Amino acid sequence: MALIVQKYGGTSVGTVERIKNVAKRVERFRDQGDDVIVVVSAMSGETNRLIGLAHEANENPPARELDVLVTTGEQVTIALLSMVLQADGYDARSYTGGQVKILTDSAHGKARIQDIDDHNIRHDLSKGRVVIVAGFQGVDENNNITTLGRGGSDTTAVALAAALKADECQIYTDVDGVYTTDPRVVDKATRLEKITFEEMLEMASLGSKVLQIRSVEFAGKYNVPLRVLSSFAEGPGTLITVEEEATMEQPVISGIAFNRDEAKLTVRGVPDIPGAAYKILGPVGDANIEVDMIVQNVGEDNSTDFTFTVHRNEFNKAQELLSEVAEKVGAKEVTGDDSIAKISIVGVGMRSHAGVASQMFRTLADESINIQMISTSEIKISVVVEEKYLELAVRALHKAFDLDNSEN
Amino acid sequence: MALIVQKYGGTSVGTVERIKNVAKRVERFRDQGDDVIVVVSAMSGETNRLIGLAHEANENPPARELDVLVTTGEQVTIALLSMVLQADGYDARSYTGGQVKILTDSAHGKARIQDIDDHNIRHDLSKGRVVIVAGFQGVDENNNITTLGRGGSDTTAVALAAALKADECQIYTDVDGVYTTDPRVVDKATRLEKITFEEMLEMASLGSKVLQIRSVEFAGKYNVPLRVLSSFAEGPGTLITVEEEATMEQPVISGIAFNRDEAKLTVRGVPDIPGAAYKILGPVGDANIEVDMIVQNVGEDNSTDFTFTVHRNEFNKAQELLSEVAEKVGAKEVTGDDSIAKISIVGVGMRSHAGVASQMFRTLADESINIQMISTSEIKISVVVEEKYLELAVRALHKAFDLDNSEN
Repeated sequence: MALIVQKYGGTSVGTVERIKNVAKRVERFRDQGDDVIVVVSAMSGETNRLIGLAHEANENPPARELDVLVTTGEQVTIALLSMVLQADGYDARSYTGGQVKILTDSAHGKARIQDIDDHNIRHDLSKGRVVIVAGFQGVDENNNITTLGRGGSDTTAVALAAALKADECQIYTDVDGVYTTDPRVVDKATRLEKITFEEMLEMASLGSKVLQIRSVEFAGKYNVPLRVLSSFAEGPGTLITVEEEATMEQPVISGIAFNRDEAKLTVRGVPDIPGAAYKILGPVGDANIEVDMIVQNVGEDNSTDFTFTVHRNEFNKAQELLSEVAEKVGAKEVTGDDSIAKISIVGVGMRSHAGVASQMFRTLADESINIQMISTSEIKISVVVEEKYLELAVRALHKAFDLDNSEN
Repeated sequence: MALIVQKYGGTSVGTVERIKNVAKRVERFRDQGDDVIVVVSAMSGETNRLIGLAHEANENPPARELDVLVTTGEQVTIALLSMVLQADGYDARSYTGGQVKILTDSAHGKARIQDIDDHNIRHDLSKGRVVIVAGFQGVDENNNITTLGRGGSDTTAVALAAALKADECQIYTDVDGVYTTDPRVVDKATRLEKITFEEMLEMASLGSKVLQIRSVEFAGKYNVPLRVLSSFAEGPGTLITVEEEATMEQPVISGIAFNRDEAKLTVRGVPDIPGAAYKILGPVGDANIEVDMIVQNVGEDNSTDFTFTVHRNEFNKAQELLSEVAEKVGAKEVTGDDSIAKISIVGVGMRSHAGVASQMFRTLADESINIQMISTSEIKISVVVEEKYLELAVRALHKAFDLDNSEN
């Protein structure tokens, strides 16, 4: 007798046949006596189809109307799932974001949830109905339709779970949980039973695209137990929860994330005076280029070097910009490298264990992999290496930190 | 400087290219200084696609969810039209039925409009915006999404025109107006410049499928000048208006309607006692079979014959039912004929002109066409003839009542 919020993404509801599978899963929970709220995305492909129409209509589609358009995708899914459940003899009722209502600010395309009215949902649950909510959407105070941006359906699910104090928020995807690293790179990668919100945040932002960062932040903030599991297979998935619970018996390192999408830029010989960092990075930020890692080393002759990473797509743009900037601040030169990879080991366990960094560096040295940059946070150590060493490095670290699946 | 409501059906907005043509027409009215409210249907094919998905999900889709599903069709169109207008530099804003809001009762799939809130629309018009409204849809008092049923977009347009006291409600279709009869049958059929609401009702209900009956009733009730015109060609179309204006210089007969979709059933030798009609027709109504014409003749031997017409699709069902009924009421036999056609001449002019009926019957007699049934109303005379005579009869009547286009 729990209250469970389940979220199914576009692939899980891509056809009516798949929606019928989703319904079967929902029904099993109902049969156990659980109350179920289901959040669904648009059928896979539908959102892109609609965006295609928008661009036929207007090269630069106005944001308000784009939201009116794309929110029809989820509206189709909620109706179909409700129909299937009712065909199976389960009472169900669908709601658009506006019908719930999920109140957001007016930032079309990237709106933030401000309030959720739980009146209709509670009423339906009390009548034994499955409640089905369109993900990704809400309305502003003037009843304009808004969207939460890509991946927003996860956020809808977590926000509903928080508002209704659900016992668990289950995110169904096409993977069966969160892994110690990408199984395509390390065949001994293992599914984690538990992971903390903080670790998940670090893993997600580093390219483990299982969950949207925002929904994890949101779940952590409101302490909503979040579970990632597969909509195509059975299994307990991975529970994302607060640290206290998760650290019992937790290894030092929970997982290894990596990212090949970045490029590295170095500005050499910057006069080492106050404000130098701002003069270099200010123009980059003004140009809306997102910077990930930033490293500054003190150099010789009262000058210093700045190195940072940007998305590989913005490498050329950033390099051009920096060449101008370098001249202005009297730096010597700008060099760049777009064949790098970033590798991070993540784990709340490293807080209380000394020597994690040195073990990481020794493991890489043993494989003769040169480290180009290092950056650390409380529960993460990231290094940049030459891209060609990525797989070798990840496999070596996976083994060194005892993450290999002994069954394989 | 008029306020005009324009309605474009599914064919007129079937592709983004066609939506751009619609926008061009709207822009011409704006350029003249008119205020424009545009009501649109779903892109052609879309509603049927959605209904197909619904039937995949549930053989008997629940009405509430079917409305949630199919209303996405118009929602897509309003967003796209607004995007196109804005790309052309015209300010525009889209509204779903719920956003307007168009309040209806809760009869999903066939809801009736109860109230229209004109606040948002008036505000936008005052700002110089084109207002775009999703046809066919509304919300009930609990914010459940409802639909007005097939053809409901016309009703939305007329209701908005009435609520906002528009100067004209223009219904754009794939024909360029209302004709004296079907041009595919009579090549000398002519476009009517004007027709009264009453005549239009009789024409529409008899198979001239230009406008939905309900929207014409509604327009007549609220005295909204209604114009039917083509979205693919230029031209003034046909104005549907109140009698006083339309009857000036009006011919006796405005048009000839016909219908091949009916079948005829006769119950012979029914004992001629009070309640006989009810005993025959009661069970037919209970079985949800719609009856059109009903004729009773007094027969011989204290018995009477009932003849009536039903839709051809329900002929077999009605015949079976009547065989049982006939036995119970002691009637002699049931006969039927499903190869009949109904032809009607319509015109408010016949009220003040004697001899219209006799001229009709003489015209048919001159062609040796036997009349099987006759039924009359104030502005209409209908006859049933053998189906094979349909074209001959319509052409003869069209000529006899001076409707032939002299230019052809």
